[in-house]
Amino acid sequence: MELLEKYLLTRKASEQLCAPLAIEDYVPQPAEFVSPPKWNLGHTTWFFEEIVLSRCIKNYKTYHPKFSYIFNSYYQALGERAKRAQRGDLSRPTVEEVYSYRKYVDDHICQLLTDTELDEETESLLEIGINHEQQHQELFYTDLKYTFSLNPLIPVYAEKAYCEDIALGDSSFLDFDAGLYEVGYKGTGFAYDNESPRHRVHLNAYNIASKLVTNQEYLEFVESGGYENSSYWHDEAWTWLTTNTITAPVYWQKQGEKWYQYTLAGLRELQSDAPCTHVSYFEAYAFAQWRGMRLPTEFEWEVAADMINWGQRWEWTESAYLPYPGYTKFDGALGEYNGKFMVNQKVLRGSSVVTPKGHERKTYRNFFHPHMPYQFNGIRLAK
Amino acid sequence: MELLEKYLLTRKASEQLCAPLAIEDYVPQPAEFVSPPKWNLGHTTWFFEEIVLSRCIKNYKTYHPKFSYIFNSYYQALGERAKRAQRGDLSRPTVEEVYSYRKYVDDHICQLLTDTELDEETESLLEIGINHEQQHQELFYTDLKYTFSLNPLIPVYAEKAYCEDIALGDSSFLDFDAGLYEVGYKGTGFAYDNESPRHRVHLNAYNIASKLVTNQEYLEFVESGGYENSSYWHDEAWTWLTTNTITAPVYWQKQGEKWYQYTLAGLRELQSDAPCTHVSYFEAYAFAQWRGMRLPTEFEWEVAADMINWGQRWEWTESAYLPYPGYTKFDGALGEYNGKFMVNQKVLRGSSVVTPKGHERKTYRNFFHPHMPYQFNGIRLAK
Amino acid sequence: MELLEKYLLTRKASEQLCAPLAIEDYVPQPAEFVSPPKWNLGHTTWFFEEIVLSRCIKNYKTYHPKFSYIFNSYYQALGERAKRAQRGDLSRPTVEEVYSYRKYVDDHICQLLTDTELDEETESLLEIGINHEQQHQELFYTDLKYTFSLNPLIPVYAEKAYCEDIALGDSSFLDFDAGLYEVGYKGTGFAYDNESPRHRVHLNAYNIASKLVTNQEYLEFVESGGYENSSYWHDEAWTWLTTNTITAPVYWQKQGEKWYQYTLAGLRELQSDAPCTHVSYFEAYAFAQWRGMRLPTEFEWEVAADMINWGQRWEWTESAYLPYPGYTKFDGALGEYNGKFMVNQKVLRGSSVVTPKGHERKTYRNFFHPHMPYQFNGIRLAK
Amino acid sequence: MELLEKYLLTRKASEQLCAPLAIEDYVPQPAEFVSPPKWNLGHTTWFFEEIVLSRCIKNYKTYHPKFSYIFNSYYQALGERAKRAQRGDLSRPTVEEVYSYRKYVDDHICQLLTDTELDEETESLLEIGINHEQQHQELFYTDLKYTFSLNPLIPVYAEKAYCEDIALGDSSFLDFDAGLYEVGYKGTGFAYDNESPRHRVHLNAYNIASKLVTNQEYLEFVESGGYENSSYWHDEAWTWLTTNTITAPVYWQKQGEKWYQYTLAGLRELQSDAPCTHVSYFEAYAFAQWRGMRLPTEFEWEVAADMINWGQRWEWTESAYLPYPGYTKFDGALGEYNGKFMVNQKVLRGSSVVTPKGHERKTYRNFFHPHMPYQFNGIRLAK
Repeated sequence: MELLEKYLLTRKASEQLCAPLAIEDYVPQPAEFVSPPKWNLGHTTWFFEEIVLSRCIKNYKTYHPKFSYIFNSYYQALGERAKRAQRGDLSRPTVEEVYSYRKYVDDHICQLLTDTELDEETESLLEIGINHEQQHQELFYTDLKYTFSLNPLIPVYAEKAYCEDIALGDSSFLDFDAGLYEVGYKGTGFAYDNESPRHRVHLNAYNIASKLVTNQEYLEFVESGGYENSSYWHDEAWTWLTTNTITAPVYWQKQGEKWYQYTLAGLRELQSDAPCTHVSYFEAYAFAQWRGMRLPTEFEWEVAADMINWGQRWEWTESAYLPYPGYTKFDGALGEYNGKFMVNQKVLRGSSVVTPKGHERKTYRNFFHPHMPYQFNGIRLAK
Repeated sequence: MELLEKYLLTRKASEQLCAPLAIEDYVPQPAEFVSPPKWNLGHTTWFFEEIVLSRCIKNYKTYHPKFSYIFNSYYQALGERAKRAQRGDLSRPTVEEVYSYRKYVDDHICQLLTDTELDEETESLLEIGINHEQQHQELFYTDLKYTFSLNPLIPVYAEKAYCEDIALGDSSFLDFDAGLYEVGYKGTGFAYDNESPRHRVHLNAYNIASKLVTNQEYLEFVESGGYENSSYWHDEAWTWLTTNTITAPVYWQKQGEKWYQYTLAGLRELQSDAPCTHVSYFEAYAFAQWRGMRLPTEFEWEVAADMINWGQRWEWTESAYLPYPGYTKFDGALGEYNGKFMVNQKVLRGSSVVTPKGHERKTYRNFFHPHMPYQFNGIRLAK
Repeated sequence: MELLEKYLLTRKASEQLCAPLAIEDYVPQPAEFVSPPKWNLGHTTWFFEEIVLSRCIKNYKTYHPKFSYIFNSYYQALGERAKRAQRGDLSRPTVEEVYSYRKYVDDHICQLLTDTELDEETESLLEIGINHEQQHQELFYTDLKYTFSLNPLIPVYAEKAYCEDIALGDSSFLDFDAGLYEVGYKGTGFAYDNESPRHRVHLNAYNIASKLVTNQEYLEFVESGGYENSSYWHDEAWTWLTTNTITAPVYWQKQGEKWYQYTLAGLRELQSDAPCTHVSYFEAYAFAQWRGMRLPTEFEWEVAADMINWGQRWEWTESAYLPYPGYTKFDGALGEYNGKFMVNQKVLRGSSVVTPKGHERKTYRNFFHPHMPYQFNGIRLAK
Repeated sequence: MELLEKYLLTRKASEQLCAPLAIEDYVPQPAEFVSPPKWNLGHTTWFFEEIVLSRCIKNYKTYHPKFSYIFNSYYQALGERAKRAQRGDLSRPTVEEVYSYRKYVDDHICQLLTDTELDEETESLLEIGINHEQQHQELFYTDLKYTFSLNPLIPVYAEKAYCEDIALGDSSFLDFDAGLYEVGYKGTGFAYDNESPRHRVHLNAYNIASKLVTNQEYLEFVESGGYENSSYWHDEAWTWLTTNTITAPVYWQKQGEKWYQYTLAGLRELQSDAPCTHVSYFEAYAFAQWRGMRLPTEFEWEVAADMINWGQRWEWTESAYLPYPGYTKFDGALGEYNGKFMVNQKVLRGSSVVTPKGHERKTYRNFFHPHMPYQFNGIRLAK
């Protein structure tokens, strides 16, 4: 696919995701980790303006002098920015203005790609911008789900958003031998800096499940008192769980004798054979302990990736998010894209039902803090 | 004026205030004390539904079963309600739905007043509901001002909102003799429970300023180091000021050598001869200390009310908000309207440029915590 | 009594209070409002050094250059000081050093009073210092009680500390007529600045109880669900109560069917006919509401003082702590003694079983925040 | 050495560390991570009582029924315990009582070891108890140093505690080849569960410094603006640094032109050629970034351990604290010793000047949160 076509499809996809929204839905930010849809649309646009247009077009005039302040997420090198927790406090720019902003930037990108022979660096920056916007498409789902889940009116994003409920078949354990393996990105397409360099690791022999843990399996953990027994949990997990009175996965609730989960299609009865979703690493680890097993490391996962079924849920691994041997950051401000987060986070592998098609990759390293359950995360066991 | 006419005019006025807003402006709540415009419109409507319609109309069907949960402010007796700090997290109901809700309730009130001979109690409840909505009209201005003031785009509510900048003439001190005075509401019109019973107080001889303190006078306090000298301030005020790094009134800012203040017409140069606005009691007290004077008590103010110029700013008094001797709360759930707030708050007297016409009264007792500067508050000196 | 004798008796009394302590008991500060005994002993000594010795003795050499930093409580005018919350973090100076400090200052005061004819101002400062130390003697009891109450070993301060358990006889209501009364300090002895000027107040006719509320009466409130019914409580009280899960007075606990209270003589069964103790203003107010009565104002109390039985518990009044008309602060740094606390606090009148003899006065105005139950506070009803 | 002898020497060593203390020094806990000396002495004693005496002696009578509540640190399986942050609030038991407690337990252990042929499990538990007490000996130093450092009197623990100031010679880089290495504990002596199983890892070729970073080197980082340039720091580090206004290592301070550091011998001028001490992982990482290098992984360190100079400072590694492949926890309550902390922490290798002799081991894995600088931590560079 041509770069311009890819660009335009990605940009269009972000807007299509917003089609079912009311104007009011673009605004709230009920927790610091949530970005309002309006902010997501503006931020991804600012990203292209900042890393491509401002550098490639001589005397480029930004759409609005304050938008960099409003839509910069965390790039220290790119100047002052609004506090993250206050994104939901800003009613302006309006949604309409944000769409104008998108059009303005899209027009300039189109013109740039039409008029100019792009050098390799600019192409690479555009690729990053496209991948960056895809990541925010996934975040759009997870953030909106969180916001809607708090609303007493239980809003429905889309009646057909049943993608969460794909039944799994039976699982078995696959065996892998001890030995030296190569891991990390190999190829000529796009990959993030954190997937390189490709390098050797030694793995002990291991077994890894062919399928994800189901709601039914996780429910047994819940109902057998798993959330009341500290022996399954990390010390920090136990503090998190008791401080926040957590007794089940975040979107689960019991009404009478039945369990329900909040989904983007509303509150629905828990599907026994669907993959368990929206658990934190703390919960994934505790579940594995309860089963007398463990989570795979990210390298065990990567080595097994071709033989297992993946893509429904991001899969927590036991691996901490750390640089590969010889890791080099992206150049310039994009050096802040991944490297500065390599502490206190856990790696997730795979992808999820809300990951944009084509964005997934078996060397992809997603990462979140161990207490965060808001992505479409699941559990795969190893031993 | 007929009660129905008064009702309809008041209801209409609330909606007219919102005319300049974008849909997005109805949503954010950047601080716990702020209510989003959407919530204000819904809450005042719920108030009529709850205290009038549900009681007067047999088998009255509420507009929506969850709206009581969403729009109840603080009435414990009226059931569970959403957390105050989370009003801005709710994108639903949409603005359009809230207007439908208003129409539904207005239609029922009209029908009730047309079809029925109201008893005295219902009339009285309607009066309270109308006064309640007027209070929220004033809160609309103060809350929106706060929200807009945080926005880097510096939104303008209305270009003509220069009402804040009314110049004051020269001030002088009026003398009052020591003696017994009567204070509290007397008459047959509407008044809140906290203005009664009318009772006697003994006042020492006192002097009270004929005009409010101006921006120029307050600026002298600021520039003479008033915010750096603890001797003018209460102990709690000093903690508040140092913890929050407060160095001037909340909406003031200095750019180069000039002082500006954020107004509903945007950021404007400070008008020297306009009344000082948006100070907390802590600031009003410290200013008076610096001038070697004091604030009047609420009874000194009330006794002098006919001879001074008032109505531009709510005026902080030295009086704590306490019940009058023999105070009796409103009946039922409305007993929570005033009485339960009679601790840790200071009385403000008068009214302000954003108080709805006809809502002001010389026995009126407004009240806020001493650190809150967000109303259109000013300072009158006494000695 | 001679001033020197009074000084020495007061100083000795502070040390006698500490006789039952282990060295370790002088150190901890389990809450910000608590002062460790060691700090109390040092602070009262610093007070004399700072306000008397440093001013009256030429070239006075302070005992230690850092002690002013460590033992200054809240006097901004007297320089930098350690953070209040960190008093319990300091193991040094040792208890022995603090006693040496006391001796050093006492020796200088003795010499000063022996060698010099004191001027009136110095006499007055000494009087304040003595009264100040008496206040800290009372705080010693209340702070130690709090600290010990948290200890799982339930320490006993003194087996004979049963002073808390004085039985009350029957109570009746005394009638007072409406009229003008004079209140405030009159006389030539010592009084704090906040008790003056004497001035007139008008009171409506009122009734006031001859005795304090007993444990038995308060227990009925507790057991009838008083802590679960928001209608008796201020809005801030309800937040305080629910946030902190408060279900009874602070030192009460139920074991099986019986109620106990922690006392300085250990955990003891609740004495039905003893005065209820250690309630906050919030609780006193709620109790009065439940009984369909109210608390007296401080002036109603003062007018009635000669005819009621007082001195067992500090008595919460309905009055906010505010300056009297024409109030003038003490001069200099002592201007911070009282005036800067005149916001957000309630007046307590009377005195308690742990108030040093001779320190009580019927015009005395004690004051605490409405949520603080740690003094030996009780309840007197009015209507 | 016989087990009994080792036991007695270890127990005695803990008490000798306390010889320079005043009674008051045993009490304060200025931060949650600090344990008061009194608590350390009691906790290590409780550990032996709980894991050895209560299990090996039939009808063993504990010294005091509440001591388990007071001295249990974090063992959920061993029952309720006092809140960690409140250890400094407890003046009782007194220091004297704690020493009696130690004697009581020592006597019983002696008798047990004299009278009985110990089985292997009991011997192993005693070994753990001895190693556990040694760990607390090191914590004694780090906690006391923190507490004393906050005291305006700048207490001296021991004039001769200059152990911190050992000069380093020149450093060079040692080369290691890529390849498969074995890491983890091998042998028959005592080792913690987290050092096993021994297993293979593949390392890329690397260079590691022969010596630790000196104060002089770190000072250059500080003075070149290292703490003001976000590009060297992790995102969480930058938040930590700006929130806490951190501008140099925790015990450093500048007076005029000179740098000082607080040591257990008091405030002393910074020694240029001594190893840099008391840096957090965040600081160690930022320093390495500034130098264009990195920290070693724990396995790079272990492989190099025989060829480098170690033992002056604990050395931060880039490795997260995770279980080794096939890791098995200790049995029973001791399963909580290490495993439950394997998240969000970084591994430190080596040992420090305050590590008890004989406690160090080249496979030893110490671990702390990345923001914690309070151990005697230093930096070794790799590339």
